[in-house]
Parts: sequence; C-alpha cells; structure tokens
Amino acid sequence: MKQSIRWEADSLFIIDQRKLPHNEVQLELSSLSESIEAIKTLAVRGAPAIGITAAYGVVVALRSSELRFEEIKRQLTASRPTAVNLFWALDRMEVCYKKNSNETKEKLIERLLAEAKAIHEEDRKMCHAMGENSNQVIPNNANIITICNTGFLATGGIGTALSGVIKAHESGKNVHVYVTETRPLLQGSRLTAWELSELNIPSTLITDNMAAHVMKTKKIDLVLAGADRIAANGDTANKIGTYSLALLAKAHKIPFYIVAPSSSFDFNSETGKDIKIEERATEEVKMIQEKAIAPQTINVYNPAFDVTPFSLITSIITEQDKTVTM
Amino acid sequence: MKQSIRWEADSLFIIDQRKLPHNEVQLELSSLSESIEAIKTLAVRGAPAIGITAAYGVVVALRSSELRFEEIKRQLTASRPTAVNLFWALDRMEVCYKKNSNETKEKLIERLLAEAKAIHEEDRKMCHAMGENSNQVIPNNANIITICNTGFLATGGIGTALSGVIKAHESGKNVHVYVTETRPLLQGSRLTAWELSELNIPSTLITDNMAAHVMKTKKIDLVLAGADRIAANGDTANKIGTYSLALLAKAHKIPFYIVAPSSSFDFNSETGKDIKIEERATEEVKMIQEKAIAPQTINVYNPAFDVTPFSLITSIITEQDKTVTM
Repeated sequence: MKQSIRWEADSLFIIDQRKLPHNEVQLELSSLSESIEAIKTLAVRGAPAIGITAAYGVVVALRSSELRFEEIKRQLTASRPTAVNLFWALDRMEVCYKKNSNETKEKLIERLLAEAKAIHEEDRKMCHAMGENSNQVIPNNANIITICNTGFLATGGIGTALSGVIKAHESGKNVHVYVTETRPLLQGSRLTAWELSELNIPSTLITDNMAAHVMKTKKIDLVLAGADRIAANGDTANKIGTYSLALLAKAHKIPFYIVAPSSSFDFNSETGKDIKIEERATEEVKMIQEKAIAPQTINVYNPAFDVTPFSLITSIITEQDKTVTM
Repeated sequence: MKQSIRWEADSLFIIDQRKLPHNEVQLELSSLSESIEAIKTLAVRGAPAIGITAAYGVVVALRSSELRFEEIKRQLTASRPTAVNLFWALDRMEVCYKKNSNETKEKLIERLLAEAKAIHEEDRKMCHAMGENSNQVIPNNANIITICNTGFLATGGIGTALSGVIKAHESGKNVHVYVTETRPLLQGSRLTAWELSELNIPSTLITDNMAAHVMKTKKIDLVLAGADRIAANGDTANKIGTYSLALLAKAHKIPFYIVAPSSSFDFNSETGKDIKIEERATEEVKMIQEKAIAPQTINVYNPAFDVTPFSLITSIITEQDKTVTM
C-alpha cells in the first residue's frame, strides 16, 4: 500500500495532499519551515500523519539549522492547534531529547531519528490493530458512511476510520462506502475517493448535505469517523460535519463509531468544551481550488472541527480494545 | 429591488443565475429551446421563477414557431420534474389556451401573455404576503439559518423563505442570516450571499456541514426554507439538505419553517413518498465551476431534493395564512 510519509535515503518525503486527486507528487521536507508549511497548508494532514511528520520534522530541523530543540518544538507545536497527536509526538521527542542531551549532536540526531521511526512504526501497527478491531463491527454487504480522509494518507499505516473498511475488504466482505465530500477542503472527494479507487473498494461520492437523505433512503449500516482529539469523557473533536453526522445517525438509529489511536485521547481536556477549535481562513469557504464561488465581501465562519458528545457515539474503537465505554 | 424575470420591450429576459455572483448578465429567451435550456441548466431556478418562466415561455414558443400548444406544454413540462409550480403554471396557461383556442393566433398570444403576466404579478403579491406572514415569526436580533436561494432570484417578487427576512430588515429589526452554501450547485454562496449583500442584510456564509455546529454554538432562533413541492399531508420536497437541517433543528429545539406559495401544494401527492425526486448529472458533484475536484471514475449519487416529513416542520407559512396545520 502507498505511504503518505516516507523516510528514505536519509530524507523526509510526503505525498503532497494539496495536489490530489489530480497529481500524485512526492514532496521533500528539508527544513523546519518546509515542515511547518506542509502541516499548516495541509500538504500533510490527518491527526496521526501530522504527529509523525512533526517527529521527523524535529530531525530535519536539527540537521538543517542551529536552532535549539525547544525552539523547534515551539514552532512545530504552533503549526496546528486541534489534533492532539501533534503535541503527543513532540512530547515523546522531547523525552528522547532530554535523555540524550549530553550526547554529540550527531548521536542526538541519530537517537531522535530512531524515536521518530518508532513513532511511525507504532502508528503502522496501531492502524493494523484498529483495522482488526473495527472490522468486527462491519457486517458483510455493509453500506458505510464516512467523513474526511482517514486512510493511508492520514496515518503512518492503513488508516483510522478507514482501516476497518480495508480489513473488511481484504477479508472478503462486500463493503460499499458513501464518501461525504467534506467541505470546505474536500478531503472526502479529493482524498478518500482517490484512496478507495486505488484500493478497488466500491464507493459513491455524495455532498455533505445528502447524508440524511442517504440514511433515510439507502440501507446504511454504520458511520465511521476518525478523531483529532478525544476528551477524557469521550467527547470527540473531529472534522467539521462529524457532529452533524452523529446527530443524523442517531435520528435514523444507525450506529456511529469513532476509530482513533489511543494517542488521540487528551486527558487534560475533561470534556469537549475544553478542546480548542481551530478556525481557518475564510478563503477556504469562498474559493474552491483558487476559483471564487461567493461574493468576495461576504462574512465567512470557518471552524475546522466540531465536537461530538460521547452520548452520540456508539463506541470509540482504538488499537487496544474494540470499545471504549466510560 | 432587482427582478430575476422581466417581460420588457415585448421580450422575455432573465438574470442568468449560472453567471452569478461574478457577473450579472441579462439573458433573452427568444425560443422554446432557449427557455427549456434555461430551466434545465438552472439559468433560471427557484420553484416560482420556473413556473413564471414556463408561462412566458409558452408565449415565446407560439410566437417563434409553428408548434402546437400541446407540444409546447409537453416539452416545458419535461424540463424539470420536481417543482410543482412548473406544472401548475402550465396548467393555468392550458385553461387560458382552451378558452381562447378559437381566436386568431395573434389574439390567442395576447391572451396567453396577459395570463403569464397575471401569474407573474400574483407571484409578486404572494411573495409580499409570505413576507408579511413569515416576518411574524422572526424576532428582533434574530439569528437565522437558511438553505439554497429563496429570494428575488427564485421568484417573481421578493422571495419565499427569504421574504420574511427582507420584511424584517425593512421593518427595522436586526437580523443576521447564516447562509448554507448548498452544494452541489452553491445556490447559497453564489446567489443568496449575493442577494443579501445587494440588500445590505448582515449574513455569514458557512458550508453545509457546519450547520449543526452553528446551531450548538451560536444562538440560532429559527431555520427558514422554501419548498419545491408539498404533499397533501405536509411532507415537503425541497433542495437536498433541507431534511438534514430539519433533523438538526429538532435536535437543538430550533423552530423550522417552510415558506412557500400555496401553489407549491400538490394534492395529488398524498405523502412525500409520492414525490418524484430529480437526480442530476454526476458532474455537478465531481466538478465545481468546471474544475474537477474528485477522481473522474468515482461513482456519484446526486439527488437534487429531499423530503422533510411534516412532523419535523414547525409550520408551513404561505401567502394565505401564517400557519398550515394538518
């Protein structure tokens, strides 16, 4: 399977997700500013993928500059505010840094690279385990609704919410995925539709506002979504529109699952109210691929995430257990 | 106020809504095929506006061709399947035609033009009355969510669902409208955002999947939507996404109103199940303004409308009464 992030020939490469589905471009990140730019502009996205890129980004930054670790961490931490995996990965890198801060720079970088590779490899294994666990809630001939992109592009492995679909397909089940396009940045139509095509998994693209109608008129078995941050009480921040899908699923008595690595839990956030929601540029809503679709003077509200209360979530599936119940 | 349809200098003109918000282009419809093309491609859209255009279209067709009335009506009837106003207006034109079929062609056309003008003028008055009636459910300082386009572009007057907003604004109330962009054809961002700017009514554009989050985090007072067809039991077919908004409004205990002329009622449709839902071309979802946003091989489902059960509708506001209760 393709990989969204690769450490190869001693360099960091990502698939530039801004260019998909039209062009599959490998982008090398060879400085701190390139790594930050890639995260900020969503060339790399998906909570686990952001964490892995940031971990490698530390190594790239130390090798290409005289910046201190603390400053590198500070800048990478500020690149995006919601996905907790970013902070989690950088905290792990910091522990490794502190343990090896008396080493030569060369040795230190070697240790940090090993740590970044470990984070990457652990994510790959976690995706596999999430896939096995979430496959258990997918019946044969399942009709599934999903949001945003949660496959190999979003992670270091086969994905979070899409991992179970991939495992179900591999294990011979018939599955069919309704892909919500996920405005404003169209991660569904641009990325998930592309991934599912690459994997030969049957799918149908719909606009976000069709989900309720599809739930009412097609036999939908379950909804699968990822997570950018999960509060201690199970409230889940994920791509804008997730809360909407959860409410609509409840109204149609359809199970609604969150699939995410346990590193998505943020026990410092007691409930969803404690999670900071990133607001992004108004141009993301007013323009689509550089074309204006609205009057340029109009006000825009552009929250990148929403919070789904745990009461609407059938269960949270992680790499550890099938189900998280509070 | 601007008019989406004008009979001027003995000719039929529309504002070409495909070109908005970037260019305000007047398009003359001087043959049957031009009228049908304008309706099919949504150069003119909005249930009442389609009816008015079809009525004038009969006159244009009779003047510019040797086609019989029955053939003209058949072709115009087939131009779009869901909005009942189209059939209602053509039935009225048929009554007028039959009453005057013994007249000279010149006299017949004169009578039919008078009937089309009457339909247009009645719609203008109905919009005014809908505005007065729906203004009554809009409090001062109201925060309103709306979908699609239901203002002057969609009608022969000031609009259906937007008429109350216009009346509220004119009567000195503070109102603020969250405009859902309304994928796939972006009638919200392209048309409603433009209309509200033209009218200096405060508004904020959001993507469709943000509505639930906005309902939870902003103080939303009501949702206003139009109708393309209302069944005898009050079930309402309207732009795809309306059913979704109705469910989300219910979950947040927000009143949900349909505002539509009584000509939107179709008593031949007992319930929403009897309403035929138009499916449109997959390119509308895969492309935005001629730019591809998804792999070209992906399956797409593109229903143009959905059905909101009457149980989710607080009330249906028409030109006749404030409230329809069954």
